[in-house]
Amino acid sequence: MANFGGHAIPGSFFLLYGFWLTVKHILQHHWRTNQPKARRVMPPLFRKLDYMEGGFLIFASFVGIMVEQFVVDGPHARLYNPEGKSWVKLMNWQHSTMYLFFGISGMALVASTASKQVPAGLDRLALSLALFVEGKSSFGSTWFLHITDTFSPGVCFELFRCFFLLANGPGFLFLYHLHNRPLLDAHIHSLLLFAVFSASASTMLEVFKRDDIVLELLRAGLFFLQGSWFYQIGFVLYPPNGPKWDLTLHDNVMFVTMCFCWHLAVALLLVAGISSAVWFAVKRFSGRGQDMEMRITSSKSSSQKALLEESDEE
Amino acid sequence: MANFGGHAIPGSFFLLYGFWLTVKHILQHHWRTNQPKARRVMPPLFRKLDYMEGGFLIFASFVGIMVEQFVVDGPHARLYNPEGKSWVKLMNWQHSTMYLFFGISGMALVASTASKQVPAGLDRLALSLALFVEGKSSFGSTWFLHITDTFSPGVCFELFRCFFLLANGPGFLFLYHLHNRPLLDAHIHSLLLFAVFSASASTMLEVFKRDDIVLELLRAGLFFLQGSWFYQIGFVLYPPNGPKWDLTLHDNVMFVTMCFCWHLAVALLLVAGISSAVWFAVKRFSGRGQDMEMRITSSKSSSQKALLEESDEE
Amino acid sequence: MANFGGHAIPGSFFLLYGFWLTVKHILQHHWRTNQPKARRVMPPLFRKLDYMEGGFLIFASFVGIMVEQFVVDGPHARLYNPEGKSWVKLMNWQHSTMYLFFGISGMALVASTASKQVPAGLDRLALSLALFVEGKSSFGSTWFLHITDTFSPGVCFELFRCFFLLANGPGFLFLYHLHNRPLLDAHIHSLLLFAVFSASASTMLEVFKRDDIVLELLRAGLFFLQGSWFYQIGFVLYPPNGPKWDLTLHDNVMFVTMCFCWHLAVALLLVAGISSAVWFAVKRFSGRGQDMEMRITSSKSSSQKALLEESDEE
Amino acid sequence: MANFGGHAIPGSFFLLYGFWLTVKHILQHHWRTNQPKARRVMPPLFRKLDYMEGGFLIFASFVGIMVEQFVVDGPHARLYNPEGKSWVKLMNWQHSTMYLFFGISGMALVASTASKQVPAGLDRLALSLALFVEGKSSFGSTWFLHITDTFSPGVCFELFRCFFLLANGPGFLFLYHLHNRPLLDAHIHSLLLFAVFSASASTMLEVFKRDDIVLELLRAGLFFLQGSWFYQIGFVLYPPNGPKWDLTLHDNVMFVTMCFCWHLAVALLLVAGISSAVWFAVKRFSGRGQDMEMRITSSKSSSQKALLEESDEE
Repeated sequence: MANFGGHAIPGSFFLLYGFWLTVKHILQHHWRTNQPKARRVMPPLFRKLDYMEGGFLIFASFVGIMVEQFVVDGPHARLYNPEGKSWVKLMNWQHSTMYLFFGISGMALVASTASKQVPAGLDRLALSLALFVEGKSSFGSTWFLHITDTFSPGVCFELFRCFFLLANGPGFLFLYHLHNRPLLDAHIHSLLLFAVFSASASTMLEVFKRDDIVLELLRAGLFFLQGSWFYQIGFVLYPPNGPKWDLTLHDNVMFVTMCFCWHLAVALLLVAGISSAVWFAVKRFSGRGQDMEMRITSSKSSSQKALLEESDEE
Repeated sequence: MANFGGHAIPGSFFLLYGFWLTVKHILQHHWRTNQPKARRVMPPLFRKLDYMEGGFLIFASFVGIMVEQFVVDGPHARLYNPEGKSWVKLMNWQHSTMYLFFGISGMALVASTASKQVPAGLDRLALSLALFVEGKSSFGSTWFLHITDTFSPGVCFELFRCFFLLANGPGFLFLYHLHNRPLLDAHIHSLLLFAVFSASASTMLEVFKRDDIVLELLRAGLFFLQGSWFYQIGFVLYPPNGPKWDLTLHDNVMFVTMCFCWHLAVALLLVAGISSAVWFAVKRFSGRGQDMEMRITSSKSSSQKALLEESDEE
Repeated sequence: MANFGGHAIPGSFFLLYGFWLTVKHILQHHWRTNQPKARRVMPPLFRKLDYMEGGFLIFASFVGIMVEQFVVDGPHARLYNPEGKSWVKLMNWQHSTMYLFFGISGMALVASTASKQVPAGLDRLALSLALFVEGKSSFGSTWFLHITDTFSPGVCFELFRCFFLLANGPGFLFLYHLHNRPLLDAHIHSLLLFAVFSASASTMLEVFKRDDIVLELLRAGLFFLQGSWFYQIGFVLYPPNGPKWDLTLHDNVMFVTMCFCWHLAVALLLVAGISSAVWFAVKRFSGRGQDMEMRITSSKSSSQKALLEESDEE
Repeated sequence: MANFGGHAIPGSFFLLYGFWLTVKHILQHHWRTNQPKARRVMPPLFRKLDYMEGGFLIFASFVGIMVEQFVVDGPHARLYNPEGKSWVKLMNWQHSTMYLFFGISGMALVASTASKQVPAGLDRLALSLALFVEGKSSFGSTWFLHITDTFSPGVCFELFRCFFLLANGPGFLFLYHLHNRPLLDAHIHSLLLFAVFSASASTMLEVFKRDDIVLELLRAGLFFLQGSWFYQIGFVLYPPNGPKWDLTLHDNVMFVTMCFCWHLAVALLLVAGISSAVWFAVKRFSGRGQDMEMRITSSKSSSQKALLEESDEE
């Protein structure tokens, strides 16, 4: 992963996923606000979207695990080498673990879409866990392995801390500094983790507060932020064309900090723009195309009304 | 406790308790979702289950305290030795304190089951406190006593921190490192504490959000995680058969971190599997056996209906 | 304050306040659960209780400020000494500030009792702030002044941290250790702060979740804990009769940690016992004495019913 | 910004904004409590107030960005100097970024006022983000640039931490101390950040808990605190007339800590006073002037009632 492509691929994935989430949640929100509360039956379209999303997550995570395991220099499903008394390619195993949890998140989404028995909020819990494990893995594999061995065990625990604090703060950077790594490298990854763990925390909140459009768009926005920041990391640490960045220059660190704020602003803008576009498109479309749907709904609702009236009359 | 058995006994206990909680909460959830809201009277079965659970907790904690006090090399209920001017067997006293709080949790469960006057949520508050004190005690007794004296007072306060942060982060590991203890030992116990304090925190949440099946199953899952991790600690630190682990090898630390994620995945799978099994069993059973119950319920509800109609007519 | 009496006076105060809160909230809870929701008009008794509590807080804080200012070696309302170019008796000013906030909390209680316009939850917010400032002051004055000057500014900020984390963790104790202070002293005060800031945090929660009996009793219990722990500090650091404690002995630190758990258990027991006693007393009393009250209430409610029926008929 | 005026201008702005918020929210609260729930249609006055506020924020942030960019020694919209291979005036860019987010917050306020499609709570989310970025920028620019380069990257991450913890605690001050900066300087800025990030966090809470008058007034109070503390910083660090403060004197640090509590008390008092004044003014005014409004409202409501009755009769 230590090249530009290794950052561009997840970046593109997360940008696309952010786009998908924005569109999906705006469609759902449009439906929710335009339907009266009593008759709010999720239309089949949304179930199909959720099946697609879940299926994609399962499929992608399966492919990811297979690639990580059976790539030329991969572990080929061997975990321990008894001859050399050593573990085999732990980094690939970590990536597989990371994909596994995204796969579990996809399964949870499919399950909670397919059955009413599955409690609402389970899919969000699983996604939150997947993001958490993603943060952990990317943290552990891309970053800390470069540092000396002594500090690495702190990684995981630090991340539990991050998950709840969205912070590992000065203590961490202080230690980092002790190991004489370039500060820009540490700093730019910290900012990525901020996006990942924010998304994890906001998704966790959704377990308890379902169908809150602000939270849902916040999640989409944090995926955009994560995606675009992956690209930024690629451009800064492995510039595809152009000169290398001076990773120790203080001004670069300051600029990157500010740049993160800009990425945040752009992510907000993207969510706002896409939301508005989808909203207006749906409105125009529903003016023309909703007729048939309306007729079905209205006939349904009128029969319901009749039923209600009968029960009232009883 | 510093042997394999000392970790296998609590491990088995927590695995069983996780299983019990999963079954109980799924049964309760099945009842809740199948009953209309107005008539939701907890059936006697659930009261009995709660009495059993509470009684077991009280009994087990009583036995635990007795064993810790009156075992051959125990304190025999003596706290202070005036001759030697020293405390007597503080570790046994700590374990007793730990059991005491599980006993209190059992009492709270019995009380809140027996009387409607006892406010809902009290049992969860007590269980949360018990887990908290458990974390504290296990932390203090099995781990830190090995280290030099200077750091020990930080234990308790660190744990208050853990309770709210689920984290003691790099600062702690840094200090640990200063004392030249093997990092794998520190790391594997940190991961245990994560499971304990997560369970404590999620139980605390249940005080405010009752009857949320996601939270209840999360708690069950965290008990599974705690139980299986106790076994893992036993296998790593005191391998019953086979070679010793190198506690300073960086790859071992990395593997243990990843392994914790797998335990988490397995715990999720176990909860999902048991839940589904119980759910389908209940469904099949209720198709055949619920007839009598149904008849009672329906007659009750019809009389209630009649009552309501009368009041409407008035 | 650096003697046994200086710890016994606030200890007694907090024990009494805990007792008062338990009784008051159980009475309120009894009223709430026995009244139907629609007619829940707070009876005059509770308003009187709240006026008394608020008035007492204002009066006590006024007396406290006066004593701190005009005691023989007090600042006599002078803050700055222009001749010596120094502040005058800052510790007394800090105590005055602490009392001031308890006074403000009393005013908020009176105001929110007197007027419906004052938003509910304001009294809890003020009490939470008062506890917060109390923690801060007691922290700053009794403890840190003994340490070298260099670290003192961290006090306040550390406390903001405590307020939200209820923790200052190992970093703090590490620094403390650097200054070669006895660890037992640090540790026993940390545990006090835990009680103070827990009470502050749980009171803050009540701003958003009014009339939750679990939270109210938790607050009462934490006041008990705080009160009894003040006594414990007095007994350990300034033993009135008997030998001095060895403040550096590791076993003492371990015992104090465990002892805090016992205080917690006793506080829980006290709240449970007092609650039950009050509940049964009220039940017996209301069987005999509630007749007159009932008659008034029923007549009121019947007139309300009539009103409602009229409005329905319209 | 490193002079008295640079602190007085934002101080005045925040004091005014606190005043504005108090008045606005009390007016809204008065309206909410006096209207029955069903007919609660926001009167045009409030929409106008919100448009004004949003417009002012957009306008002020635009002016701020222009000034920062095109002031004599500003960057004139140039970010990178390819000849010198260096960034151009990063501090001005940081201030612009800060203004940008206040502008975005203004836009969100206008959007959520103008359209019902915009989800409620978006304006608060944007304001929360703006305060967060403000804290970050002011932190980064006024303070840390003075310190050596090595620690600066911690700034941003520390602030993410602050945002959630409202704390950066002893670790930070410890590091600060290592760089031999005067402690009073560090301490007084920490207290400012406390006010900024508290406001950010309480605004974030409002996303989920709309129309809670306690939270709204808390926000107003924190703006007062922030404003008056800016003045205090100005007076302490750049005394306009009078002697310089000794930035290393321990008593000064203690006094500043206590002084912050007084500012907090004064802010509470200001909010209480302004609220009461507005409340009574509105009451007197509405006794005389509300007639016309009432008539409109009542005619509206009667027509609504008629409509409802018709629909009932159908």
